[in-house]
Formats: sequence, C-alpha cells, structure tokens
Amino acid sequence: MPQKRYLFTPGPTPVPPQVLTALGEPVLHHRGPDFRTVFERVLARLREVHRTSSDVLLFTCSGTGAFESAIVNLCSPGDRVLAVSAGHFGERWIAMARAYGCAVEELRYTWGETPSPDDLARKLEEIEPVALVLIVHSETSTGDVADVQALARIVKRAGALAVVDAVSSLGAVPLEMDEWELDVVVSGSQKALMAPPGLATVAVSPAALEHSARASLPRYYLDWERTRKAQAKFDSPFTPAVSLVVALDVALGLLLEDGLECAFERHIRLGRACRAGLKAMGLELFSPDEDRSAVVTAARMPEGFEATQLTRVLRDRHGITIASGQGELKDQIFRIGHIGWFDEFDIATALSAVELALGELGAPVERGLAATRALEVYTEGAPV
Amino acid sequence: MPQKRYLFTPGPTPVPPQVLTALGEPVLHHRGPDFRTVFERVLARLREVHRTSSDVLLFTCSGTGAFESAIVNLCSPGDRVLAVSAGHFGERWIAMARAYGCAVEELRYTWGETPSPDDLARKLEEIEPVALVLIVHSETSTGDVADVQALARIVKRAGALAVVDAVSSLGAVPLEMDEWELDVVVSGSQKALMAPPGLATVAVSPAALEHSARASLPRYYLDWERTRKAQAKFDSPFTPAVSLVVALDVALGLLLEDGLECAFERHIRLGRACRAGLKAMGLELFSPDEDRSAVVTAARMPEGFEATQLTRVLRDRHGITIASGQGELKDQIFRIGHIGWFDEFDIATALSAVELALGELGAPVERGLAATRALEVYTEGAPV
Repeated sequence: MPQKRYLFTPGPTPVPPQVLTALGEPVLHHRGPDFRTVFERVLARLREVHRTSSDVLLFTCSGTGAFESAIVNLCSPGDRVLAVSAGHFGERWIAMARAYGCAVEELRYTWGETPSPDDLARKLEEIEPVALVLIVHSETSTGDVADVQALARIVKRAGALAVVDAVSSLGAVPLEMDEWELDVVVSGSQKALMAPPGLATVAVSPAALEHSARASLPRYYLDWERTRKAQAKFDSPFTPAVSLVVALDVALGLLLEDGLECAFERHIRLGRACRAGLKAMGLELFSPDEDRSAVVTAARMPEGFEATQLTRVLRDRHGITIASGQGELKDQIFRIGHIGWFDEFDIATALSAVELALGELGAPVERGLAATRALEVYTEGAPV
Repeated sequence: MPQKRYLFTPGPTPVPPQVLTALGEPVLHHRGPDFRTVFERVLARLREVHRTSSDVLLFTCSGTGAFESAIVNLCSPGDRVLAVSAGHFGERWIAMARAYGCAVEELRYTWGETPSPDDLARKLEEIEPVALVLIVHSETSTGDVADVQALARIVKRAGALAVVDAVSSLGAVPLEMDEWELDVVVSGSQKALMAPPGLATVAVSPAALEHSARASLPRYYLDWERTRKAQAKFDSPFTPAVSLVVALDVALGLLLEDGLECAFERHIRLGRACRAGLKAMGLELFSPDEDRSAVVTAARMPEGFEATQLTRVLRDRHGITIASGQGELKDQIFRIGHIGWFDEFDIATALSAVELALGELGAPVERGLAATRALEVYTEGAPV
C-alpha cells in the first residue's frame, strides 16, 4: 500500500475532498450556460473574499503570471516603480519589473524583517514621484505578514498605486481591498482559497483600470481590458481551466459558508499552536512570534543541521512534505504552511513529525511536548 | 435528475473517466519526487506525441498564452512576421503579433480556404526577408487542416522559422515536428490530448531556441529559457497546475498505449462518418470533404436558418453542445468537433441530435438516414 502523504507546505495546500470531487466532474464547455452560472458565482465570491466591489479578473496561470499582468497593464517602459522587498517574492517582483524595462527603486530589507510604513514614507519622499509601489502581503519565504493597510496609506498619500501580492494571504489573514484603498490585489487558487494551482486572480480598482489605459507595455493574454470586457458577460477571452474554476467555486463556497472572520481566527490559532509547539521543542522561531504571522511559521534549524536534511528525511521516510528555506535561507530555516484547509491536528502531526525527524538526525530537541502544547494553545480559546 | 450532457465542440473536448479520476487525486507538491516522476514522464510523452527530440515546454495557460510565448521569445519590436490566415485563429495571431509591435505581413484567405504552398512561396519572395512565419495547422473555426509539411518546406527555404498552431491538431492528425523541420509547435491540453483546459505546450527546435536568445521583447512568465532550464531538472519555474499535469499524464498514456497512428486513423474515420451523415441529411459541407479534415466538421445551415438557433435548441432542449461558427461565419455554419476521446456512436448521437433539432426548427432535412450512414461509413474499414 502506498505510504500516506501529508502536505504541510506553504502551497500548494491540501484541497478538501468536496473540491477534489468537483475537480473530477465532466468538463463543461466554457461558453455554455452551465459554466456561465458557475463562473458568475465564482466572480461574485471572489469579490466577497477580496472585500471589494471592483472587478476581480481571473486568469489561467500561476500567481506569478497574474502579478505580471499588473506590471504589463500598469507600466510603460521606463516607468518608475518602487518595490518593497523583504524576501524571495519581493525579489521576484523586482526582477520582473526590471525585465519589463521599469526603473525599479527598492526599499529592501533583510529577509524576514517587517517592512515599516515610516521607512516607506521616507523612501517615497526621497524618490517621488513613482507610478506604483509593489508590496508583498504575506512573504511566503519568511512567514512575515506586512501591515498592508498602513503601507497602502503611505502609498496613497504619495499619489501612487498600491499593488499587493496577496497570493498566500488572501482568505487567511484580513485584507480589505476597498476599505484600505488597495489598487491591485493579486492572488492564487492554491493557498488559502483551497483549490489546486492553475488559477490566479487580479482585483483591479477603478483607478488602476483607468491608469492601465495609458500604460504602453504590450500585452495580449494578460490584458486586463480584454478580460474585464469578457467577464462583464461572464465569459473569458480565452479557454479557461474550466475544471479548476468549478473546483474553486466549491472551495470558495466552503470558505464563505463559515465566513471569512472564522477563517482569519482559525489561522491565528493555527499560527499560535505551531509557534508554541516549535518553542516547546526548543527551537528558535524565524517568523515573528506574533498573531499576524498566521500563514507560514518558520523556525531556525538547530546549529549544525541543514533544513534540506530535515525535509528529505520527513519526505522520504515519513511521507510528510514541509518546506526548507528559499534563496539565502535555504538550509537555515524550515517552514510549515498552515494555509487554508488546516486544523489543529494537522499542526500536531506536522510538529510530531518534525520532532521525530530531528531526533532521527541526532539534533538536540525536546521530545514529547510539542504536539500537546500545540493542541492546548489551539483550544485555549478564540483570539480577541 | 439533471439532464445528461454531451460535449461535441471543438474544445474543450470530453475527458475519459480515467483522466477525470486522476484529476481528483490529492494535490502533489510541485517540487517533490512524487510530482517530479509524473512531470518527467509527461515531458517524455509530449516529445513522443510531437515526434521530436527537442524540448517541449509546458505552461499553465491556454493555447493562446503558449502561442504568445512564441511571439515574445522570438521577436524584437519591429520584426517582420508573416502570418498565414484562413480563419479565426489566423486572425488572432495577426492581432497578437501586432499588439507586440511586429510588422505583420499577411497571406490572407477567405475563411475556410486552404493555404497553398505556392501562394506562400510567392508571398515570401515578394516580402523577404521575414523572421518567422505563423501557420495554423487545424483551423478550428473552419474545419480546414493545412498541409503544414509543404508550407514549412517553403518557410525553411526562405530561411525563416516556422511557428505552427497545432492546438486542435496535435494527436488527431499527423504532425512530425523533426521530420518536417518545424521550429515551434504550440498545442493545448484540451483537444486531442484528452485532458481539461489549462495547460499548453510549446515545442521548440534548437534553431528557435538560439533565435530566442537574440529576441528583445520583454517576457517573464512565458520566458522559454527560464522554463527550459527548470524542466531540464524536471522542475517548473512557477507553480504549475499540478492536478492538470497528473491528468495529462494519464491522458497521454491512453493516447500512446494504442499508438498515434491508431488515433490518426480513428480521426479520419470519424471525419468520414460525420461528413457522410451530414450529407445524408441533405446538408452542404463547409469544411473540405476530404480525409485531411479529420478534426472538426463544419456544415452550412439550411437557407433561412441561423446556426445559433440550432445550437441553442440542441443545448437547452437536448443537453447537447455543438458549436456555431466564429466571427463572420457565426450564423452560417455549425461545427461538430470529433477530437480526442470520440467514437462512432458519439458521431451518431451528434448527427441524430442535429437532425432532430433541425426538424424541430422546421428546417428541411432528410430524416432517418444520417446516423445509420455514419456508422456504415465508420465501419467500412480502415482508411489507407
């Protein structure tokens, strides 16, 4: 019998059985009324998840493709763009904007640091004007969740557009597109939205849409206006991944049935439980020991041990997938994702497995406390 | 009980139950060995289907996105490109290349005509030099299948690169990438490859890859070199639609189990059967009454009746989806796709339904002959 598999990475995330079942339904024609009904509902649900009345454009691509749509729809060659970077994904958006000929200014932090609104205000004063500011909400590579509301306020004051990478945060931690006046919010199907990878979303404010009409970078597949026009009739300009859309519809239904607040609260408690367990094991946290770090928990490896050793033992011996670090942090930290369809027993399993594998590697680790501590903390009661 | 549904469009096409079952399996992590094994096999199978030893790059996007990758990886602004167009998709590639600032020359035919190698030779002489020639193999909007081998020979003689849209043809009719010296072949998961939409492929010859190093159009998500490098390690630069890749693996396995020749022969017989049935009904064919028209069969509507009436009655009353025309042919023709997972009884059903619905609309149509005639023709024996 094949070994059981456990997916505790920061994405793709586990997909509920109801969603998998929907995924396996016969393929619908993308221009027929059966699909149109689903598509209309998905688009409405996506607006609800974004807390926006703006259009949420749906693309068949990864989150990176959707983020690229923000660059090509908002920029002209040579446009000045400020990127706030404190990890792998911040770096990716810098590289991407440069690939498109933008003049990229950087507000750069050591990986794992939390971007500060004051730093952003100073930077913007120093370099004004810029057309857009790229912000990462949840930096999946470090576990840090930025205060997008405060950062966006500074961006708006400087008259720029706030473009937010919410790929791993949307549906896990609060994001209020309209209330926080975010201009572009990019997300993906495979994180807190609990669907398989392959779909990505771009919520576009009226100001961003207006701005895009003047942006001269060439685009076709990722063109916002073409997609917006089609979606106004609950249609897509190109054949979408219909099976994934049907699955996403079911997943969004599950998410919204309980309400977003319920998901936010659960993620806070999952984060608390995970951090408590890791500390009980005697490990040092890398991600902030704070409730806002509710998406991915990262811990430092014990001195003399490498994260890729740990992930390999977990995977090859125990069927459990967690993530090592990315880039310069590759072997220094490991990451447990608790995004989307996770409960306290998943956390207990992940922690028990890490404890077991570290023991097997001969790393110094406190045994027998982590899972119990995590479950205690989880059930201690709702966070305020 | 919900009405049964029948999908007889030129894409998405019906997906075999084995493939749907694979689609609903728990999501794999895209960087783990479980997925890598599948991915390696999919890439090998795709090379087999393309009859090439070159790399087949896999993108999470629609066929249009993959075709766009050919433009952005092969062109610099102002590059001269010749597009051969005889239908909706030919027009799309012209519009796309223009959107990217290419100087597009056109070899344009009335929709439904078959591009001629002689015309192409003359056109190329007239306008030489061009960097690339865009060719549509199966023009899904008209049912015409071009002689790509002969066209590519002319392109090569002119020292240009042959870029082939094989979205609806690959796996249905012969395509020999290496033998015919095609430089770029673009296809999609949702046609003869019998998987759901959401994945698209770009097979790239060494010459095209070399050319792409000098092309200056900006690209990131669709960048060939980034994708090629990752695929060399059976990895993807960005999170791919893992569920669709797992499904595509099963579908390609089914296709190659019997062998491509078997699929080609079946498509020829399906085309023969469909044409024979439509003629038995007294309808006039729009697509060529020839074996090469083995992908989509198009027929003219009886005088005074509109194709959208027919498709609506079929869909709303009978649960059957066929396609009307596209663009200027919208109401003049209807199209029955027989791509991928189709057999003779599907053709009989499609024909019987068309016959019934035309009768209901009051159109003059011969009753009781089409399905029988189609089954007779299908079983008459293997084509040479």
